[in-house]
Amino acid sequence: MHKITGGVTAPKGFLAGGIHCGVRANQTKKDLAIIYSQKNCAAAAVYTQNKVFGAPITVTKNNLANGMAQALVCNSGNANTCNADGIEKAEAMCVLTANALGLAPEDILVASTGVIGQILPLEPIEKGIRELSPLLTATGGEDAARAIMTTDTKKKEEAYEISIGGKIVTIGAMAKGSGMIHPNMATMLGFLTTDCAITTPMLQKALKLAVDDTFNMVSVDGDTSTNDMVSIMANAMAENPIIDQDGSDFDAFASVVKEICTSMSKQIAGDGEGATKLIECNVTGAPSIPLAKSIAKTIITSSLTKTAMFGADANWGRVLCAIGYTEGDFSVDGIYVDMASAKGKIVVCENGAGVPFDEDTAKNILLEEEVQINVNLNQGNGTATAWGCDLTYDYVKINGDYRT
Amino acid sequence: MHKITGGVTAPKGFLAGGIHCGVRANQTKKDLAIIYSQKNCAAAAVYTQNKVFGAPITVTKNNLANGMAQALVCNSGNANTCNADGIEKAEAMCVLTANALGLAPEDILVASTGVIGQILPLEPIEKGIRELSPLLTATGGEDAARAIMTTDTKKKEEAYEISIGGKIVTIGAMAKGSGMIHPNMATMLGFLTTDCAITTPMLQKALKLAVDDTFNMVSVDGDTSTNDMVSIMANAMAENPIIDQDGSDFDAFASVVKEICTSMSKQIAGDGEGATKLIECNVTGAPSIPLAKSIAKTIITSSLTKTAMFGADANWGRVLCAIGYTEGDFSVDGIYVDMASAKGKIVVCENGAGVPFDEDTAKNILLEEEVQINVNLNQGNGTATAWGCDLTYDYVKINGDYRT
Repeated sequence: MHKITGGVTAPKGFLAGGIHCGVRANQTKKDLAIIYSQKNCAAAAVYTQNKVFGAPITVTKNNLANGMAQALVCNSGNANTCNADGIEKAEAMCVLTANALGLAPEDILVASTGVIGQILPLEPIEKGIRELSPLLTATGGEDAARAIMTTDTKKKEEAYEISIGGKIVTIGAMAKGSGMIHPNMATMLGFLTTDCAITTPMLQKALKLAVDDTFNMVSVDGDTSTNDMVSIMANAMAENPIIDQDGSDFDAFASVVKEICTSMSKQIAGDGEGATKLIECNVTGAPSIPLAKSIAKTIITSSLTKTAMFGADANWGRVLCAIGYTEGDFSVDGIYVDMASAKGKIVVCENGAGVPFDEDTAKNILLEEEVQINVNLNQGNGTATAWGCDLTYDYVKINGDYRT
Repeated sequence: MHKITGGVTAPKGFLAGGIHCGVRANQTKKDLAIIYSQKNCAAAAVYTQNKVFGAPITVTKNNLANGMAQALVCNSGNANTCNADGIEKAEAMCVLTANALGLAPEDILVASTGVIGQILPLEPIEKGIRELSPLLTATGGEDAARAIMTTDTKKKEEAYEISIGGKIVTIGAMAKGSGMIHPNMATMLGFLTTDCAITTPMLQKALKLAVDDTFNMVSVDGDTSTNDMVSIMANAMAENPIIDQDGSDFDAFASVVKEICTSMSKQIAGDGEGATKLIECNVTGAPSIPLAKSIAKTIITSSLTKTAMFGADANWGRVLCAIGYTEGDFSVDGIYVDMASAKGKIVVCENGAGVPFDEDTAKNILLEEEVQINVNLNQGNGTATAWGCDLTYDYVKINGDYRT
């Protein structure tokens, strides 16, 4: 597999675009995105496990019941969640998009992101869908990626090519997510497109496998959003032999889905609200993979670890503390911890106790924009990686008065 | 029951004191406290459930095996945790204190709070115990309360009187805790003293009952410390008929223990690292008490709710979001939420959907130093209260470079 330029419009037959329609007050910020496939797609999605979930989640689940979709519409600026008329509005978004693109409403995936509990104004969306639909292009992926951003500072998109059954298969993705990020099943918004020929069940399987180890291992602030969703649409235009069972073709496809989800996840964590750095936590030697995952996520979620990383302070006691309050049955006696970055590595803890290290060297290592916290529990073969970011003044600033 | 002035030295027969001995570099900060009872005490304690726990926890548990104690020694500035020689040092603190006070080492409770993973220097503590022991007085409670502070900005102490069996029984307390606070079983440091005559089992029962609903319902940052401990010593000098079983005397005693623990808990939450306000979350109408507790704690732990409170922003969608990701089986359809303070009350959500409210009124209410978030799930009789604080720039500042 190799990376190519572009995002959701990189695969054959996908058009997209993004504009400002007026849900957001700031006219310089795009707030409406549409992705359209020239052919009907096998489609799959995973969703937030929050008991309070957005109306678009309900509507997308309904529309995906047949495993097919042909377009996706998404607004930013309003989550359409906890509103009495939410379902009605989300369904209206599908009808409007379907009409504008000559599709059936059941072919539309719908998503919303932004403030919870404010009535979604349909007028700007109606006007926006009408304006945007004729403007979708095969180079519009970047505009779409920008239109789904909220407090994100960077657009997040990527594309890969891989050879399957003698054909070049392309997969593209865009994502958004910066705060309220601590996914449980799915996470934030991630929209993948591919021209791969694959059945819906195998597509769902590939997506689930990837999301469990990528989007679900990201935490910015421990808050699981109400509107998380990752979807994938596959239009078969690569003309590879259809993937309808396990085997080397599926493995190849699943690996590229995982690769693109990993990249999106790291981009989301590194662009966490107010973040100055990406923190990657690698846990090895755990009694099981689920425990390794729990420990890795607990570490990158710890406010004290996060603030220490902001201060480039190798305060490893906070890492030990976070490990210790992770639920589950494991021993803390043999724990090894090091911290690393492009500038080098320092071992800070062995056999559960501190190891002397040079503070200046540590600071130099932790001042990098991407740092690793590596933990070995020395009691099994379970491994996991989680991604997070530091907790900074700007996180507080961004969230102290988000609505106004 | 009624509140009186003072803290741990308010009950008969308790002497205490606090000095700067040199564990902390800053000479203006006291770092060593001793509490001493003129008579041997029934004693009980609850401890952190973190798998990584401080050496003082181990030693105190051992010394409390017989249910008796007569003195407590506590240093701040160093947690004596994750050190290869931790147990040895904690035992040495008991021996030194016992020698200075003419007691047996098993009569000493020991606690440490501060940085994890740095070797505890015994020399200043040895010198400090020698200096402090002859200086303990019946008015030394305040100095002791100051000596256990770390990032706390206010000393936390309180005392109550209650009549039991025709005798005035007094109970005093001091506590510390500001960051790394999200107790699981016990929490932070809380030291209670009383002249009540009560058996160790009934004392343990009263403490456990109180802690479950008070200290364990506080969260500052979601991080459960390695050194949390709440202890109580009862020296029987009030000469009430000994409480050795359930009944009205026990109920009276338990109620005053709970009252003083509630007060300590609110003081700790309100003095959370960087906090500008105390947040009290009251949950009613839950299917069960454990679920009500989980929901209340999830809300006050949510970074997004905490930053919204810092901004005096009635962003109730974040409260709903936090409720929704609380684990457990409950419905979110009938949720009611209001926010209140001394300035009034606004209803923000009914039947799971938003209710229009005046933003200026809301801001005015939330600018107070003590605010309530009141949630009614409308599906049962479970109730709970949790206490937390807002997440501010200063939390980040305090923790971004705590060690240097």
